[in-house]
Amino acid sequence: MEVKRILVVGLGLIGGSLAMALQGFDGCEVVGGVRSQRTYEKAKDRRAADRLTFHPEEELPQSDVVILCQDPAGIISFLRDNRDRFKPGSLVMDVCGVKTAIAEAARCLPEGVDFIGCHPMAGKEVSGIDNAEATLFRNTHFIITPGENSTEEHIALLYRMAAYCRFGDVTRTTPERHDELIAYTSQLMHVIAVSVCDGADFFSCQGFEGGSFRDCTRVASLDVPMWTQLFTLNAPALTKMVTELENRMREYRLAIEAGDREKLAAMLEIAAGRKKQVNLERARGDDVHPKF
Amino acid sequence: MEVKRILVVGLGLIGGSLAMALQGFDGCEVVGGVRSQRTYEKAKDRRAADRLTFHPEEELPQSDVVILCQDPAGIISFLRDNRDRFKPGSLVMDVCGVKTAIAEAARCLPEGVDFIGCHPMAGKEVSGIDNAEATLFRNTHFIITPGENSTEEHIALLYRMAAYCRFGDVTRTTPERHDELIAYTSQLMHVIAVSVCDGADFFSCQGFEGGSFRDCTRVASLDVPMWTQLFTLNAPALTKMVTELENRMREYRLAIEAGDREKLAAMLEIAAGRKKQVNLERARGDDVHPKF
Repeated sequence: MEVKRILVVGLGLIGGSLAMALQGFDGCEVVGGVRSQRTYEKAKDRRAADRLTFHPEEELPQSDVVILCQDPAGIISFLRDNRDRFKPGSLVMDVCGVKTAIAEAARCLPEGVDFIGCHPMAGKEVSGIDNAEATLFRNTHFIITPGENSTEEHIALLYRMAAYCRFGDVTRTTPERHDELIAYTSQLMHVIAVSVCDGADFFSCQGFEGGSFRDCTRVASLDVPMWTQLFTLNAPALTKMVTELENRMREYRLAIEAGDREKLAAMLEIAAGRKKQVNLERARGDDVHPKF
Repeated sequence: MEVKRILVVGLGLIGGSLAMALQGFDGCEVVGGVRSQRTYEKAKDRRAADRLTFHPEEELPQSDVVILCQDPAGIISFLRDNRDRFKPGSLVMDVCGVKTAIAEAARCLPEGVDFIGCHPMAGKEVSGIDNAEATLFRNTHFIITPGENSTEEHIALLYRMAAYCRFGDVTRTTPERHDELIAYTSQLMHVIAVSVCDGADFFSCQGFEGGSFRDCTRVASLDVPMWTQLFTLNAPALTKMVTELENRMREYRLAIEAGDREKLAAMLEIAAGRKKQVNLERARGDDVHPKF
C-alpha cells in the first residue's frame, strides 16, 4: 500500500512523539493536527510534523493513514463528526488506552474505511508536546486490535510503521481482550498508585521511602480528565480487577494478622516463584510476540 | 570516639555491601562474620572485608562497633546468645527492616553496651554477597532509632559512618514510628507486588505490560523467609496499612463501578495533586532531614 500522507490528530505526548517518530516513513508527509496556539508553536519549534494544521478534518480526504491521538472522548466525537470525510481505503487508527469503546464508536465509519484500534504501551508521568520525543517507543509494546474487516495490507502497514518507530514488538488481540488485560497491567497500577498516595502518612514519610515506594507511586501524578475517561470507559473489567486485588491483599492481611507464618510463607513462596519464573522467561528472551 | 574494629555479622546483600563501603573508615579493621563456606569464598574473592571469620562471637570483646546484618530472627538470637560478650562502651547496631522487635530483644544487653537499631533504605530484588556492592547506599536514606540511653558520641559516629557510606541523608526517629512508616512505605509495597503477581492473567499479559506494571511488581521476587519474618514482626502496623489501602481502593472501585465521573475525577485530582506536590518539594530540594 502506498502511503503519501499520514495525519496525526492531537499532538500531545503520544501524538507528538508518533509524529516525530514517523517522519520520513515511506517518504510520505506527516501532518499534525492541533487545537491550541501553544501546542502549534511548540510543535513548530520542535519540528514535530512536516506540516501543522488547526483543521485536521480538512486533511481527511487526502490522508492515507489517520492516527487519532486525542483523549477517548475526543476520538469518539472526532469519528462521529467526520465519518464522511475519511478517504475510502484509508487506515484509521487510534492510540488511546481503551479499545472496546473506541471500536464501537468507529462502527459509524463507512465501509471501505478500515479502523484498527492500537495502543502503544509507552508513556511518561508527564504529558503534552513538551515531553514528546521520537524515541519514546523504543523497546515498548505495540498492541493492535484489527476487526473482522481489516485488510491484511493495513495490518502489514501497521507492522511496518511499528518497526519504523522502533517498538519492541507487536501484539495482536481483540479490543475486549485488550481491555481485560490492560485493566490488570495498567489501569490497576494507576488505581494502586493513587490509593497509596492518599495514605495518611504520605506527607510525613520522607526519609522512609525506598525504591519500591517511588516506583509504585510514580504514575500517581496522572492526567485526571484522561484517566477518568479511561477508568469509566473500562469500568466492568477494571472493577473486576480491583475487586480481585482487594481479595488477594485481604488474604495476605489475614495471614499476617493471624501470625500464621507457615501459611504466609507458603503464599509468598507462590507469588515470588511466579515473579521469578517470568523474570527468567524474559531473561531467556522467550517471547510469544512477533518481533516484525 | 576511636574505632579500631568494626564487626559486620552476616555478609548478605546489606552486610556485604556495608562491609565493602566501610573499608578504610577511620583506618579501622572491618571484620566480616560468615556462616557458610560459599559466602566465605565469595566474600574473600570480592574482598568484602579486611578479615573474615566463621566465629564472629569471638570478635565481640575487641569490637568497637558491631553491625548485625542477619535476618531478624538471626539478630534476636545472636543478641541473646552473646549478650555478655560485647565490649563495654561499644556501639551495637542492626540493619533489618523492623525496629521495635529488635529493640525489645536488645534490652537483654548489659548496661554500657549501646544498641541503636538502624535501617538503610537500600536494597535490590536480588540478595546475597554476589549482589553486594560498596555503592549500594549512594543517595539512599539511613534511618536511626537511638534509645534513651544512647550516647551522643555514638549517634555522631553513626552520622559519620553514614556519610562515609555515601547515604543521601540520615533520619532519626523511634523504633515504633519507624515501624509504622515502614509498614506504609516498604512492607505495603511488597504486599501489593505479590498480590499483583498472584493475578490470574499474570502469565498471559506479556505484550501488555508498561513501565508501571514492571515497577510495581519488581519487588515481588522477594526473599521469602526474611519477608515472612518482617511482616509478622510488624503485624499490627502492617495489618492497619493493608486494611486502609483496601478501603481506599474500594472507594475508587465504587466510583468507577457507579460510573460517577465527577466523583472519580475529584478523587483523582486530590491524589494526583498530592503526588505532584511531593514531586515539586523533592525537585526544589526541600528536605527535613540533615544532610550530615
